[in-house]
Amino acid sequence: MLTKVGSFQFHIESYVCDFTEKATISVMCNFILDTASIHAQQRGFGYEQISKDNVAWVLSRLSVEITEYPGQNQYFTVETWVENVSRFFTQRCFCFINQSGKVIGYARSIWAAIDIKTRRPIDIQIWRPDLADYIVEEKVCPIEKLAKIPPIDGIEANMGYTVRYSDIDINKHMNSVKYIEHVINTFDLSIFKEKFISKFEIVYLAEGSFGDKLKLYKTQVSESEFLVDTKKGEESVCRSRIIWK
Amino acid sequence: MLTKVGSFQFHIESYVCDFTEKATISVMCNFILDTASIHAQQRGFGYEQISKDNVAWVLSRLSVEITEYPGQNQYFTVETWVENVSRFFTQRCFCFINQSGKVIGYARSIWAAIDIKTRRPIDIQIWRPDLADYIVEEKVCPIEKLAKIPPIDGIEANMGYTVRYSDIDINKHMNSVKYIEHVINTFDLSIFKEKFISKFEIVYLAEGSFGDKLKLYKTQVSESEFLVDTKKGEESVCRSRIIWK
Repeated sequence: MLTKVGSFQFHIESYVCDFTEKATISVMCNFILDTASIHAQQRGFGYEQISKDNVAWVLSRLSVEITEYPGQNQYFTVETWVENVSRFFTQRCFCFINQSGKVIGYARSIWAAIDIKTRRPIDIQIWRPDLADYIVEEKVCPIEKLAKIPPIDGIEANMGYTVRYSDIDINKHMNSVKYIEHVINTFDLSIFKEKFISKFEIVYLAEGSFGDKLKLYKTQVSESEFLVDTKKGEESVCRSRIIWK
Repeated sequence: MLTKVGSFQFHIESYVCDFTEKATISVMCNFILDTASIHAQQRGFGYEQISKDNVAWVLSRLSVEITEYPGQNQYFTVETWVENVSRFFTQRCFCFINQSGKVIGYARSIWAAIDIKTRRPIDIQIWRPDLADYIVEEKVCPIEKLAKIPPIDGIEANMGYTVRYSDIDINKHMNSVKYIEHVINTFDLSIFKEKFISKFEIVYLAEGSFGDKLKLYKTQVSESEFLVDTKKGEESVCRSRIIWK
């Protein structure tokens, strides 16, 4: 049996960096999803394996805290492990380690397993009781529990977008990270010159598809905190909280 | 002295693939620019080194021909070399090799060296006569010479976009590959299900900056060939030719 904690190294290429020469928050989220996917695959509950049961993992929530972003040309490691498995959700944690071995952030994600045809959640404990064998109790993920993100009666950020080819993932739905990229794009370049995103939370509520016209509504809660609601018509597709430092 | 031809290996992660589970044309262009940058850096004429002379490389044209895109989880190699150096331009070629050692494509790029302050081209042969030492004559890049792409009186693709944070590169200009991503996004998902982009050409004419509102004009030249003009007001920022197979 493989170790419960998976550890994956990445090299930060120039094209995943923004103008500050650091990896972007979207790229960090790509690393998160990639390691989740490989870790699960290696342990027998990856996307391809569970599709034989007509089941797919769906990301429900993600919370990321970063104290320092890895820079261009640096190596960077993501550790990931299963924190717990309940009936309808499993929590997976992540730890980010820079090339000097320093911990530079954490993330926690919540996943549902859905029936591919009905799109309804299935009982994970009945479907795959073996997943509990991978739970790591001794590793701490010192990230606050994901707080509720309220619907936003905010000012329209005037940044609607239509879901295009580059937004679509391997499952033909909108890529989870692309929502994040569009949310981050509501900010002016000036804020990235002075600050960085120290915390990013997102809750996924509905699925976007090719051609959907989405609108972004943004509100500022405090000097450092913003909420962004991504809507299709009246319906929230995802809501996110961004905290700058 | 390092070998004249540089060879760089990449691993195709899931997040650089589209729904066909292959790397996208934009990602292939990222690999191109990345290898160009590393190859030049290793040989003393990279971005950081020439910035000390107040000089920067500017991509003027790019032509890419691909017979087969690398798939998810595959390894993939890009070879790059300098094909020639004239007064105001240098040509750099690329060869794509899949993990079985098969050549799956080529690219040719044309670069100008500009004075960072005046933004005007400088005479490369006077500035850096040593670049000629890196010219590789024995390696063939069987790609057609870049043809002119005419201005387009086409139908507006109805896909204007505003240049956002995710479009901006390390030099605070619009990232060369992001123009390509927006051009590709003018196509409907259905075409990607049946065909792939066998040839992509782009000529860069002006620089986009944060907040610019760009418009895309597209025309279909034949069953498989499209032209897309990206304009800021009346001015073409870049023009591209896309051939599907």
